[in-house]
Amino acid sequence: MSIQRFGTTKRYSDSVVHSGTVYLVEVPATETGDIATQTQSLLAGVERLLAQAGSDKSRLLMVTVYLADLADYDGMNAIWDAWLPPDCAPTRACVQARLARPGWRVEMAVVAATSIVS
Amino acid sequence: MSIQRFGTTKRYSDSVVHSGTVYLVEVPATETGDIATQTQSLLAGVERLLAQAGSDKSRLLMVTVYLADLADYDGMNAIWDAWLPPDCAPTRACVQARLARPGWRVEMAVVAATSIVS
Amino acid sequence: MSIQRFGTTKRYSDSVVHSGTVYLVEVPATETGDIATQTQSLLAGVERLLAQAGSDKSRLLMVTVYLADLADYDGMNAIWDAWLPPDCAPTRACVQARLARPGWRVEMAVVAATSIVS
Repeated sequence: MSIQRFGTTKRYSDSVVHSGTVYLVEVPATETGDIATQTQSLLAGVERLLAQAGSDKSRLLMVTVYLADLADYDGMNAIWDAWLPPDCAPTRACVQARLARPGWRVEMAVVAATSIVS
Repeated sequence: MSIQRFGTTKRYSDSVVHSGTVYLVEVPATETGDIATQTQSLLAGVERLLAQAGSDKSRLLMVTVYLADLADYDGMNAIWDAWLPPDCAPTRACVQARLARPGWRVEMAVVAATSIVS
Repeated sequence: MSIQRFGTTKRYSDSVVHSGTVYLVEVPATETGDIATQTQSLLAGVERLLAQAGSDKSRLLMVTVYLADLADYDGMNAIWDAWLPPDCAPTRACVQARLARPGWRVEMAVVAATSIVS
């Protein structure tokens, strides 16, 4: 069983596929903007990465949401709830944690099913 | 390979099964009580979710423990150690992180093997 | 499909293998030393655990890096970048979180592909 990587740099890949599962981590494309803007940016990125890896947002398995400030919890959820297709929600952890860039308000680690046979 | 979800709401599922693996996130059923009470509550929930998903606590693979206050580390471990069957411990990360509800002292993200063929 | 564990204690295993995937969590072997020393110590441990579980650092899928202080971000990355083989980077989340022992500056949770058939 081989491994398929997308967007690989020296430090990390955008996503990695193995054995019918895709792993990816995404951050907002912007370091400015409120939580709605940043969550929309991040989830648009997740959708692109999922598509690239042969998956989509109806096949999420587990998501870890890191919020720089839990005061953004409701704002993040408003975008998240509207973004998810019905009856497809993954299991999800959500905690507060300081993120690598001070402007980021949210980061997500995603595990999803994919139809790519690597 | 299909996906099987349990306890699915608009925002998240209690657990998701794919390819012989179950993913779940659990919190205590109470926002009051000390770490012993909350860990027991949480692990009872984990047991129920594992059973629902065709697994049990002898088949844990990886657990991430988020403690609101690392001062609860020994208290959480006392319940954890007594709860785990012999020779079945998963690999485990444990870090401090502020949790979504101020009363929660602990949250766990769990990956386990399951015999459900989805 | 069975589960294979390595370094199992009452509380956790060093690594757990299931269905072609190995899960492991590693910390530095020392509670003193700067971030370079601790990251090198931790990654040497990851290499040993991967080898024991039939894998190696060219088969990482997803890594979660917890830093006790994000001021160590560049120092951790310098060691990480030099340690990874070319074109093999996993997807990676990196957040700040207080760790279980006050001397630890870094902890990593790792998911990798393995050739062990358990």
